Amino acid sequence: MVKENILKKVEKTIENYRLLEKDDKVLVGFSGGKDSVCLLYILYLLKEKYNLSLIAFHLNHLIRGKEAYQDEVFCKEFCQKLNIPLIIKRRNVKKYAQKNKLSLEEAGHKLRYYYYEKIAQKENCQKIALAHTASDNVETILLSLISGKGLKRISGILPKNNNIVRPLIDLTAEEVLNFLKENNLTYREDSSNKDLKIPRNYLRNVVIPYLKKLNPKIEKTFRQITELLAWENEYLEKETKKILNSVIKKEKKEILINKENFKNLPLAIKRRVVKEILPNLNFSQIERIVKLPEKPIGKKINLENNLIVYNEYQNLRIFSSDKKISKIFKIKLNKINYFKEINLKLTCQVINIEKIKKFNYNNCEYFDKNDIHLPLFIRFRKEGDFISIKNGKKKLKKLFIDMKIPQKIRDQLPLLCDRKGILWILGVYRAYRGFIKKKTKKVLKVKILKWQNPIYQN
Amino acid sequence: MVKENILKKVEKTIENYRLLEKDDKVLVGFSGGKDSVCLLYILYLLKEKYNLSLIAFHLNHLIRGKEAYQDEVFCKEFCQKLNIPLIIKRRNVKKYAQKNKLSLEEAGHKLRYYYYEKIAQKENCQKIALAHTASDNVETILLSLISGKGLKRISGILPKNNNIVRPLIDLTAEEVLNFLKENNLTYREDSSNKDLKIPRNYLRNVVIPYLKKLNPKIEKTFRQITELLAWENEYLEKETKKILNSVIKKEKKEILINKENFKNLPLAIKRRVVKEILPNLNFSQIERIVKLPEKPIGKKINLENNLIVYNEYQNLRIFSSDKKISKIFKIKLNKINYFKEINLKLTCQVINIEKIKKFNYNNCEYFDKNDIHLPLFIRFRKEGDFISIKNGKKKLKKLFIDMKIPQKIRDQLPLLCDRKGILWILGVYRAYRGFIKKKTKKVLKVKILKWQNPIYQN
Repeated sequence: MVKENILKKVEKTIENYRLLEKDDKVLVGFSGGKDSVCLLYILYLLKEKYNLSLIAFHLNHLIRGKEAYQDEVFCKEFCQKLNIPLIIKRRNVKKYAQKNKLSLEEAGHKLRYYYYEKIAQKENCQKIALAHTASDNVETILLSLISGKGLKRISGILPKNNNIVRPLIDLTAEEVLNFLKENNLTYREDSSNKDLKIPRNYLRNVVIPYLKKLNPKIEKTFRQITELLAWENEYLEKETKKILNSVIKKEKKEILINKENFKNLPLAIKRRVVKEILPNLNFSQIERIVKLPEKPIGKKINLENNLIVYNEYQNLRIFSSDKKISKIFKIKLNKINYFKEINLKLTCQVINIEKIKKFNYNNCEYFDKNDIHLPLFIRFRKEGDFISIKNGKKKLKKLFIDMKIPQKIRDQLPLLCDRKGILWILGVYRAYRGFIKKKTKKVLKVKILKWQNPIYQN
Repeated sequence: MVKENILKKVEKTIENYRLLEKDDKVLVGFSGGKDSVCLLYILYLLKEKYNLSLIAFHLNHLIRGKEAYQDEVFCKEFCQKLNIPLIIKRRNVKKYAQKNKLSLEEAGHKLRYYYYEKIAQKENCQKIALAHTASDNVETILLSLISGKGLKRISGILPKNNNIVRPLIDLTAEEVLNFLKENNLTYREDSSNKDLKIPRNYLRNVVIPYLKKLNPKIEKTFRQITELLAWENEYLEKETKKILNSVIKKEKKEILINKENFKNLPLAIKRRVVKEILPNLNFSQIERIVKLPEKPIGKKINLENNLIVYNEYQNLRIFSSDKKISKIFKIKLNKINYFKEINLKLTCQVINIEKIKKFNYNNCEYFDKNDIHLPLFIRFRKEGDFISIKNGKKKLKKLFIDMKIPQKIRDQLPLLCDRKGILWILGVYRAYRGFIKKKTKKVLKVKILKWQNPIYQN
């Protein structure tokens, strides 16, 4: 009975939102948890009806030690029973999170979606089916509401996003459990789901049970809210894009907002125009920009990343402040040097020339160690700087003009120096001094590991 | 210190949203609770700066017995100290709620706002200041989110609605308490605020403390959300009204939606068009109407109140089904008869003719009791009905045609009858039978207390 009703409900969701079509090949995200077991089994039951081909995908996050491998085994056995091919990937999500400064949840999410798309493409799957439920949607809406990330919209989980479909989006967590019970399906419990330090778990286990006392059908209510807000948001985004070109003008690395046209827009659209141009701003910053045209001419707002918004007579001008950096960054040899403030990571190694099999000039430069006067450091240009060239030396200013390097970024190019002067304008031009010669024995190899070259940024 | 900061914060709110202007006369809602004590005192402190005239208003809800009168006394004394005139009204909110089928909260709300407007008008107040805080706003947003009232928007409390202003809207409950403490201000505690059966109290005391653990600045976050949603909602409403006339056509009591034009609208606007026409529908009903143009011609949707939406070739036709009512409603003499189903309230009294000083034909008819054959009842017309006229009798059908009464409403006119036939087509035509004569001693006086006459409705 439960089985029949729940299956019907899922079919209705599939029809309503056109989640599946006949002959679809579907990649199913499969953690082995209750929701994904329910999804995979329901799709298995609907296989004939829609003539589906199913593939499951399991990402082993390598986080919970033995538990993770047991999950993997469970997934294998489950898919074997249903005769559904299963692709397994193992990735160290913890490492990935640390490297990319993400929370474990964010990192797992990013990696999973990366593989979904990659595998779907490789396997020619028309759809990627994920097991999000109406209960997940309640958590997501509350999280986005409470998160306080300023202008981020209250947004829930949609039944369909491009090729990603969510057939369980109308089921509650209780319905999923009932379905599993009735069908004698087992599943794996993720022990981290009990960790109340994770906001989502805290909402699920602590807060939402209280809210359900006020509205036992909160899942349905929130599904309707998701529907409404998603489409209203889409409409507002489209409207904003429609008028955007009549309000802004892009000039190389600057953006101009025509004040006359901007003033006449409804406040809701004004905010969205600013958000479209500078998507990372928070609510207060957007409000300040929206109100800037009414302030005195010449008033400016300083934002993060050296961004400045300037109130001119006709326009709001948004540009990078190109602030001069006067600090000196000392380099340690044979270590990874990471200078956060300028987002630069590089290594300077001293090696014997025999060890270099092939000179690789991709983000690398090589210097005769004999011509180098330690210590090495990074600084930015100052008045009167020059660099050695073949027949003497050349003023940096002249060099930049000859190389047509834009005025704006000249102060942002890191200069690798030793005690005697500039060795390398990073990624742009190296000094003549220190070229590798026949008699060179020891080599200073400088390798840029991370740096956003402002010349190619545009 | 607290005092200074909080006062500054309120002033900033007042300036930001232009809540008060110089020389304003302000009516202040004053319950005697912490928020309204804080508001009244802050306005008192700002009196000189804005050259305000202040009047306070207290509504005694007569609910909590002695407590309510003690509140009243507290308010009187507080206002006397500050030399602010106070208007007090006493209304039995419980009775009002029962009579109008409202919850106590709704009834109190309705009555208070009724008096705010009435007194503001009488006293020439430009503004009505209410003591809602940012904490109230958090509760309101969550309530509207959870309430599950379908298409009702997630909406918070705005700093300004026409002449109603809320200077404390950026303060949290904690800030209010700090301000009161620092200023040695006492206030009255409403014991009903502890009743967790009231959803708002449940949220305030049970749920929100948990949410604040995830975001301690939830008040600020929700204020920003209110700002964003209110303006986006206003924009969407305006856009909907702009296009409404190109999509709908009103034909007497019908509304036609042009399917061709409707189809091309974005889904968000489609929903809002339907909501604009039929504001009381819930989410599912609106969805069904939005999807109706894609269904077969001739398909119809039955809504409450006999409303029907019909899928025609070119239009969606929305009309009242004019269902025939076959039920008979018996009338009790000398009592108020209220027939809910047909929304009719009337009295039929038998009185001595001497008691009638003046015949009043406004919603009344008079019959010679001697010509009446009890019992009286109300029914609706049926085939072959006739009514007595001066020279005999006339078919109702013929009468309606002669009187040019629209076909559609003929079945909706209640007929007052006795055992011998029709006495009065309510509000339209009375039988010749039973006219008051010289010899009439006892009179049947029929008085309509409540009825929406469909003829004059349009």
